[in-house]
Amino acid sequence: MSGAIAELAELLARLPGIGRRSATRLAFHLLKANRDYVKKLGESVGSLHDRVRRCSICANVGDDDPCAICADRARSGRAICVVEGVPDLWAIEEAGTFRGRYHVLHGLLKPIDGVGPADLNLATLKERVVQEGVGEVIVATRPSVEGEATALLVKQTLFGLEVRITRIASGVPHGSELEYADGRTLMRALDDRREL
Amino acid sequence: MSGAIAELAELLARLPGIGRRSATRLAFHLLKANRDYVKKLGESVGSLHDRVRRCSICANVGDDDPCAICADRARSGRAICVVEGVPDLWAIEEAGTFRGRYHVLHGLLKPIDGVGPADLNLATLKERVVQEGVGEVIVATRPSVEGEATALLVKQTLFGLEVRITRIASGVPHGSELEYADGRTLMRALDDRREL
Repeated sequence: MSGAIAELAELLARLPGIGRRSATRLAFHLLKANRDYVKKLGESVGSLHDRVRRCSICANVGDDDPCAICADRARSGRAICVVEGVPDLWAIEEAGTFRGRYHVLHGLLKPIDGVGPADLNLATLKERVVQEGVGEVIVATRPSVEGEATALLVKQTLFGLEVRITRIASGVPHGSELEYADGRTLMRALDDRREL
Repeated sequence: MSGAIAELAELLARLPGIGRRSATRLAFHLLKANRDYVKKLGESVGSLHDRVRRCSICANVGDDDPCAICADRARSGRAICVVEGVPDLWAIEEAGTFRGRYHVLHGLLKPIDGVGPADLNLATLKERVVQEGVGEVIVATRPSVEGEATALLVKQTLFGLEVRITRIASGVPHGSELEYADGRTLMRALDDRREL
């Protein structure tokens, strides 16, 4: 096998969800692909770590510090949405209804994997709530054992502050069919029912 | 979304089998991955086209021209194995029994997609057979409509030459169960049966 292709395939195979076979196929695809595109992809990968910064306020990642959201004066500082990771932040941004700010934990409590409270980006949250005059902290961690445990940890962290702490709703997803929902989801949907 | 991450995700999403969602996930994975690894991956992708050459004899791709196989004097020039693409060549090399040389077509006949005889790397095969004193041409294209049509084309191309033209066997794969084999495979396995 060619050294250059073999090397690339080996590097690609270390990516999650890409096995040795697909890595080889990808390397080949790149060999046949447009030269400029492949050059650009290489530069984009290689420069990623140099170009991306972590926001010193909310721990979002972006081209600047503070990030575009924290720097946006049009956004309200009254509400902070606490998320597990940056992809969750993006998903909420794409939904387009939330106009407050964020706080990215970069993880969830998972004692079994050795992830404790100190491993999450929680130290500055209390300070932010006080200094930014936050009225509501919305905990948007996923509805799972780890997500719920982390939500409770956020609540404990903010204990004693004059701030409303809420949790995103869990239930049957929009557009899905009830018959395919799992029992736990249906239970949550029933428990969290609201007036029509 | 960060410009650098968004740009990378957009470039990754153009790869086959990688949708927008996995592209974003991959970009994030790279952001969290080891800095040196990511730099190396970027260089490997970016330099691919500059490092890889096509062999002027067999059209295999590699770091040199002629390729390592064509340059290997220990390999017999008596047999040429005709393959659709370089991955097939590698698969046969990994099987480890074939010690002859190759001829890579870089495609199969597919009139419906506009791929005709002129689009395949066939022009030099006849010349090679004559000049290299080849005794057997093994056509190892896949057992499909296009693979069989291409095999016949190879045979026509070599018409009139004193050379044995063979086709790889098609049948039930090693280690698989007969009950799961499709009808066409079983038909081929029966047709191509041999003496025990």
